[in-house]
Amino acid sequence: MPNSADDLPAVVTGGAGAIGSALVQSLLGRGRTVRVIDNLSGGRREHLPAGPGAARLSLTVADIREPATYAEAFRGAGEVWHLAANPDIRLGTRDPRVDLEHGTIATFNVLETARRFDVRRVLFSSSSAVYGLPTVFPTPETYGPLYPQSQYGASKLAAEGLCSAFAHSYGLTTYLFRFANIVGPGMTHAVIYDLLKKLQADPSRLEVLGDGRQAKSYLWVDDCVEGMHVAKERASAPVNLFNLGTEGQTSVREIAERVTRAMGGRAQIVYTGGTRGWVGDIPLQLLATDRIRALGWTPKFTSSEAVDRTIAVTREELGL
Amino acid sequence: MPNSADDLPAVVTGGAGAIGSALVQSLLGRGRTVRVIDNLSGGRREHLPAGPGAARLSLTVADIREPATYAEAFRGAGEVWHLAANPDIRLGTRDPRVDLEHGTIATFNVLETARRFDVRRVLFSSSSAVYGLPTVFPTPETYGPLYPQSQYGASKLAAEGLCSAFAHSYGLTTYLFRFANIVGPGMTHAVIYDLLKKLQADPSRLEVLGDGRQAKSYLWVDDCVEGMHVAKERASAPVNLFNLGTEGQTSVREIAERVTRAMGGRAQIVYTGGTRGWVGDIPLQLLATDRIRALGWTPKFTSSEAVDRTIAVTREELGL
Repeated sequence: MPNSADDLPAVVTGGAGAIGSALVQSLLGRGRTVRVIDNLSGGRREHLPAGPGAARLSLTVADIREPATYAEAFRGAGEVWHLAANPDIRLGTRDPRVDLEHGTIATFNVLETARRFDVRRVLFSSSSAVYGLPTVFPTPETYGPLYPQSQYGASKLAAEGLCSAFAHSYGLTTYLFRFANIVGPGMTHAVIYDLLKKLQADPSRLEVLGDGRQAKSYLWVDDCVEGMHVAKERASAPVNLFNLGTEGQTSVREIAERVTRAMGGRAQIVYTGGTRGWVGDIPLQLLATDRIRALGWTPKFTSSEAVDRTIAVTREELGL
Repeated sequence: MPNSADDLPAVVTGGAGAIGSALVQSLLGRGRTVRVIDNLSGGRREHLPAGPGAARLSLTVADIREPATYAEAFRGAGEVWHLAANPDIRLGTRDPRVDLEHGTIATFNVLETARRFDVRRVLFSSSSAVYGLPTVFPTPETYGPLYPQSQYGASKLAAEGLCSAFAHSYGLTTYLFRFANIVGPGMTHAVIYDLLKKLQADPSRLEVLGDGRQAKSYLWVDDCVEGMHVAKERASAPVNLFNLGTEGQTSVREIAERVTRAMGGRAQIVYTGGTRGWVGDIPLQLLATDRIRALGWTPKFTSSEAVDRTIAVTREELGL
């Protein structure tokens, strides 16, 4: 008989995505049964672990906006890791409804389904995007007011508020993780992937959005996953909020140079100019991580190490 | 020819509600043409001013969730005051979808419609409920993290984030007002109205939810409206965030005693006990108002004066 929630299946929405699949791997490694819900738009079936433990893994291909199509996966689960979202921040500026539907409303549906099936713990991947353009670096979880610059950031803030309301109204225990830039295998967007794709198309010239001085913290995906486990194991308030990032930053200029060097150093780097890469971009991001570090978490890789590892793995994936 | 946005019509969603109709009155008094959008669920047609200026007032009866039914009212408007919402915080615990739809999604639709019709200013009635259970009193706008306790609070936080994202993505100028408890004529819910209704049903006994020690700031509705005008006239950032409240608080015990005294002092007051009146209730609320005061705003009435005035006007309305 199960004697704790950790003996029950774990639900992972977006589990076939880059972060989700690393989380699924870690859960299988801990002996858990894992039920992935993914629409396979950003995620890919082949991201899901095929090795030992794969027999304990199931996949429901479903649209997170349609709870009736995936609700059964919640039955008898110990917790829900809600990672599904629109991963492309820029898309939200062109079509603001995407983040409303795939972010805010989807999170509402996940929380309602958890409540309906009496799943008592919900862990949510929020984002540093909720901070907007903060004036304090590193930015602590207590920073305010929060002025998100993008529809993506607005949807993450909305989802945090929903988690809090469900926690306090219905007794759920919730975990909110404000991610720095999470990097690793299986990336299909964001700066490293974009730059490598550009070099694949034209090895002689690398156009970089912005002036290259945008600087952010890049966290290796397994460090991120480990941070979520640490929080879940050691914190138990109704709402447990943690920044997850590295202590250092890497500038876009440094990433462009590392990418170019990794590819043989032949490309000329050209900056489009401006302090932001795109509308809604956050030029400076560095999160205070005292809270999660106080629970015993330390990332294995620095920001620049995480960038280098991601360049290497993405080159392999792109056949570069 | 119009030479400024203030010569153009003002749109007021929820304009037939208690706060909305006071705002409409003030706009007509300033010579504005006013287009009210209201579903007349909480609002009432008879709240709308009938005196001088009423010829400059029009009403679209529409559901704020259905932008196609009211979008034309945005054409050529100078600004939108978005006040429509579910006014009953307790309802959200029983049916969490109400605040998602009437709060978050409705605000998204209002912002999208403003963008579509190139209405450059949006003013939004947020709430002290976004603060959840703060640990700092009076609570400043910079307080964080924000853990709303109710679906109502979550929807207000979500709507703030949407205003910020629209402001930064599309160049809107937005005003976010975190209201204390706003009181005045035309109230159809909240503590003063509830207590008077109870005394109307049974003049001998007054049951009060909680232990009576919940203490909040009550702001007279015309002071609230004046604060919004001051902000609009004197602040112009992409996002302009202001608490609106009084410097003092009034306890529920004091309100119960004032209500009982006003009704002849015969009723026995009985407290149900517990620190909160209901799930999602915020037992202590006091907002720092330095920001709006720095722009020259001062409320005419203290919290207890606002309570007394509201008792008097609600008695009249209830025929008590």
